[in-house]
Amino acid sequence: MTEAATAAAHTPQYVVGVDYGTLSGRALVVRVSDGAELGSAVHDYAHAVVTDHVPVDGGASLPPEWALQVPQDYRDVLRHAVPAAVAAAGIDPADVIGIATDFTACTVLPTSAEGVPLCEVPGWEQRPHAWVKLWRHHAAQGQADRINALAAERGESWLARYGGLISSEWEFAKALQVLEEDPEVYAATARWVEAADWIVWQLCGAYVRNACTAGYKGIRQDGAYPSRDFLAALNPSFASFVDDKLDHQIGELGSVAGTLTAEAAAWTGLREGIAVAVGNVDAHVTAPAAQATAPGQMVAIMGTSTCHVMSSDVLREVPGMCGVVDGGIVAGLYGYEAGQSGVGDIFGWFTRTAVPADYAAEAERRGLSVHELLTERASAQAVAEHGLVALDWHSGNRSMLVDHELSGLVVGQTLATRPEDTYRALLESTAFGTRVILEAFRDAGVPVTELVIAGGLAKNRLLMQIYADVTRMPLSVIGSAQGPALGSAIHAAVAAGAYPDVATAAGRMGRVERAAYVPDEADAAAYDPLFEEYVRLHDHFGRRGNDVMRRLKALRRKAIAAKSHPAEPVPTTGQEASAGGEAA
Amino acid sequence: MTEAATAAAHTPQYVVGVDYGTLSGRALVVRVSDGAELGSAVHDYAHAVVTDHVPVDGGASLPPEWALQVPQDYRDVLRHAVPAAVAAAGIDPADVIGIATDFTACTVLPTSAEGVPLCEVPGWEQRPHAWVKLWRHHAAQGQADRINALAAERGESWLARYGGLISSEWEFAKALQVLEEDPEVYAATARWVEAADWIVWQLCGAYVRNACTAGYKGIRQDGAYPSRDFLAALNPSFASFVDDKLDHQIGELGSVAGTLTAEAAAWTGLREGIAVAVGNVDAHVTAPAAQATAPGQMVAIMGTSTCHVMSSDVLREVPGMCGVVDGGIVAGLYGYEAGQSGVGDIFGWFTRTAVPADYAAEAERRGLSVHELLTERASAQAVAEHGLVALDWHSGNRSMLVDHELSGLVVGQTLATRPEDTYRALLESTAFGTRVILEAFRDAGVPVTELVIAGGLAKNRLLMQIYADVTRMPLSVIGSAQGPALGSAIHAAVAAGAYPDVATAAGRMGRVERAAYVPDEADAAAYDPLFEEYVRLHDHFGRRGNDVMRRLKALRRKAIAAKSHPAEPVPTTGQEASAGGEAA
Repeated sequence: MTEAATAAAHTPQYVVGVDYGTLSGRALVVRVSDGAELGSAVHDYAHAVVTDHVPVDGGASLPPEWALQVPQDYRDVLRHAVPAAVAAAGIDPADVIGIATDFTACTVLPTSAEGVPLCEVPGWEQRPHAWVKLWRHHAAQGQADRINALAAERGESWLARYGGLISSEWEFAKALQVLEEDPEVYAATARWVEAADWIVWQLCGAYVRNACTAGYKGIRQDGAYPSRDFLAALNPSFASFVDDKLDHQIGELGSVAGTLTAEAAAWTGLREGIAVAVGNVDAHVTAPAAQATAPGQMVAIMGTSTCHVMSSDVLREVPGMCGVVDGGIVAGLYGYEAGQSGVGDIFGWFTRTAVPADYAAEAERRGLSVHELLTERASAQAVAEHGLVALDWHSGNRSMLVDHELSGLVVGQTLATRPEDTYRALLESTAFGTRVILEAFRDAGVPVTELVIAGGLAKNRLLMQIYADVTRMPLSVIGSAQGPALGSAIHAAVAAGAYPDVATAAGRMGRVERAAYVPDEADAAAYDPLFEEYVRLHDHFGRRGNDVMRRLKALRRKAIAAKSHPAEPVPTTGQEASAGGEAA
Repeated sequence: MTEAATAAAHTPQYVVGVDYGTLSGRALVVRVSDGAELGSAVHDYAHAVVTDHVPVDGGASLPPEWALQVPQDYRDVLRHAVPAAVAAAGIDPADVIGIATDFTACTVLPTSAEGVPLCEVPGWEQRPHAWVKLWRHHAAQGQADRINALAAERGESWLARYGGLISSEWEFAKALQVLEEDPEVYAATARWVEAADWIVWQLCGAYVRNACTAGYKGIRQDGAYPSRDFLAALNPSFASFVDDKLDHQIGELGSVAGTLTAEAAAWTGLREGIAVAVGNVDAHVTAPAAQATAPGQMVAIMGTSTCHVMSSDVLREVPGMCGVVDGGIVAGLYGYEAGQSGVGDIFGWFTRTAVPADYAAEAERRGLSVHELLTERASAQAVAEHGLVALDWHSGNRSMLVDHELSGLVVGQTLATRPEDTYRALLESTAFGTRVILEAFRDAGVPVTELVIAGGLAKNRLLMQIYADVTRMPLSVIGSAQGPALGSAIHAAVAAGAYPDVATAAGRMGRVERAAYVPDEADAAAYDPLFEEYVRLHDHFGRRGNDVMRRLKALRRKAIAAKSHPAEPVPTTGQEASAGGEAA
């Protein structure tokens, strides 16, 4: 037993977990002995998501699909949210024995050899490519397409570990975009660093690539990255990318990256020298917070989108999954990831844009949200009573089909269809989407034995019951509203030596209500034929039975482009110019 | 030239057209010489549509799908609306030279040999089957199914004249339902009379079956009805239905059924002895009001649903049409009918149930209807910019597929889809539905050369332009807001001898703006790929590629039935009953 663990038996010890989201960072102070959440604080990023202009005076405008962030915003979370959380917890900061972080991914930035973001190096701040590329920067699709085509052509073994497709959001596509669009920035980049690792570098002064993002986002498989040959075939100047800018020491999840520097101690108000854990990802770090670290326990983190993470002791290639990574969730097990790109976002869109004034008025009068009113009305229905089935692809399909050109579909509306009918059909469509994923894992030989729900949607009881009925599985629900930050705190406790491993720490510090929802057999049976309809539509529209969704998106882009840049030039003679102007 | 026509040259002469709709009747006074509309009045039916109980004291409750009306309500239109219209016109009723009527169809009732409605014969008023069955009485589907199956099996030649399907709304299915559900009412029925002919019988004391409903609703083709053999095979007691209760003198449209009786003169305030025209149907009578009596001029009467009527000099069998009848619109030409079961109804449903409060608030603030606001916003879009395509089957499909088990579909919604996007896609879907019908007529050798729009939707300029672009046809628009009543007035003028035929009268009294909308070639070209998508979805979901819509309706019915009649009996012991009660 370590010194810290021994001490834990006598005086209270604490850890801090910091969860870096898309718009803000949250710090949470947690008691090591039992995972009690004692205080938390949120700090919004001053620059949020940068999509218009490089965020400096006179900064250039950004092309479509770009999404940048500002590194100083991340440091400011350490300077503001951590001390505020410690103060809210009412503890002595000297009793904090470790800190850990989780981050969105793949969020990635170019740095100097010392970890200085290139956008903070004088002379580079005007260059768009010198800034942090947020996970949802989608301007490297061309590069991703070439990576996928070449990998398939060459039969690269790592491709199947990602369900057959590398995302434009990940480290290689984004780096290749930098090389091809601003070779000077590329040349000046000493390290291509996941923000998850960069923040740890800021805390402890050491650069360690965490096994999770190195695997899921950095195409590290079986200890190796894509080969020099492969990279050279993509672009000769890319051949040495791994050797020069990417490859570096790997840290297992829950291990120590280093100790808190004097500078970071000054930012956070914590003691210099306490343990800093290796970085992690928001979804993956949630698994131990929900005590779901054993093989077969799938955690669905359900918010605007859903991320599924599950450990297993077998390595299989699941078609359409996001990825499988050795130690990607818990050291020693294979970590699987899948996802649904639109879930809460779809319900929010519907509630915002498709529910009439009389519903809004009733909700307000009764002190309900529109979501709550729709849920109440939808709850009164029998399964299949609405006569609808929907496809949940309003934001594309992340897992199984891996296609963001897909879109939503609703079949069965009549003049008798009410808002709560369509709302319920949309809730159900996301449950059907989850079942498709569960069945793909099962069929690939990676059975799911328990479904554990985390994230904001866990509080919708109707939605949870639908998921239990549709999947015919008992649902466990995480016992914390701050799953990722709690998960980080668990990793901090392990890094500090308070527990021997993440699973043990999760058993003490995580919280879950087992079987909070159990399937109703009659409703489950009634859902089976609706699920069959979902699958039939899923395969027809998703697997090239009818490519209408992709064609509609292409037609839409063409229509919008023609509107901003009319194909016909304006005539040059006075009279014609006048007529042309009216017609335009 | 008749005496009346000669007089027309000297003193103003007038006619009255009476349009019997689903909820009210409208009388319109029209000047014979030029069709000027001088005054009109509406009278609401006191009993509207009867769907709950037989409309007498202690009347039995009605099964689902029933829809009855009350004959006295029709007479009351003559007693109230006609004098009110004459008064509003400020004319001398002695100058009215004729009256004509049009009616919903197939609206049908059992009468005595003298035309007394059976529900007015003492002793029969409590019988549901003694009342008028409104066109939308849909409880004879079982009988219609048997008629269609038997006709197909026997290769009855008349079946193809109805696009291959006889509707449950029509005379034979409804009569067979009476026979099989209340043989006493059937036996007491001397005549099975279209309301269109019954009201004429009330006016002039003579029973004449108009060629239009006899053909479209009464399966009269080439001068004959379905054979005795056929009827006997349906039900032996039905063998003599045509001979005993249906067959009767036929009157061509625009001809005289008789002259106004003293009693009817007293009701209406008009002169006894003036001409009464044979009956007609609201949609068909609109064609002359829009000066669309020549071959190839298709009139689309666009309201909650759309009815298409067109005359032609060729007889062809158009798959999926509602019917083709010799003299069905204009004597001497073949009259074709098709329809779309949901049009304005779909737009109304969307506006009522799927447009959020902030839109309603903006519309109110700016003094617009929600329809107008959505139209304004949708008008700002380029074709295909919304990225959507919809199927307009929220109320089933009347023509081409002839299937009321079909339902609506929207493909392509994303989190960026706004209400005006879906609204425009729904407008477009009905235009695509019209184009499918036009192409079916063209492919069958009955080309449509002009599309003339009548009905309430003609005032939506965006909708009209979409129809012009999608169909690539110039649209003419009727110049009257009271098309059916004006059409009836035209028939009254012909019956009174003021004009030699309906086409001539239409040329003088009808009103149309030719080519009010012309296709924009760029937009028409942009619609072609969207129409292709519509057709692909139409055939997939409508022609058995995927029967999901029919299955969803079946599942819905099952779910609702199970809810009202739970399959599991309530246990009988005290303790179990209590548990069962909680579970139920």
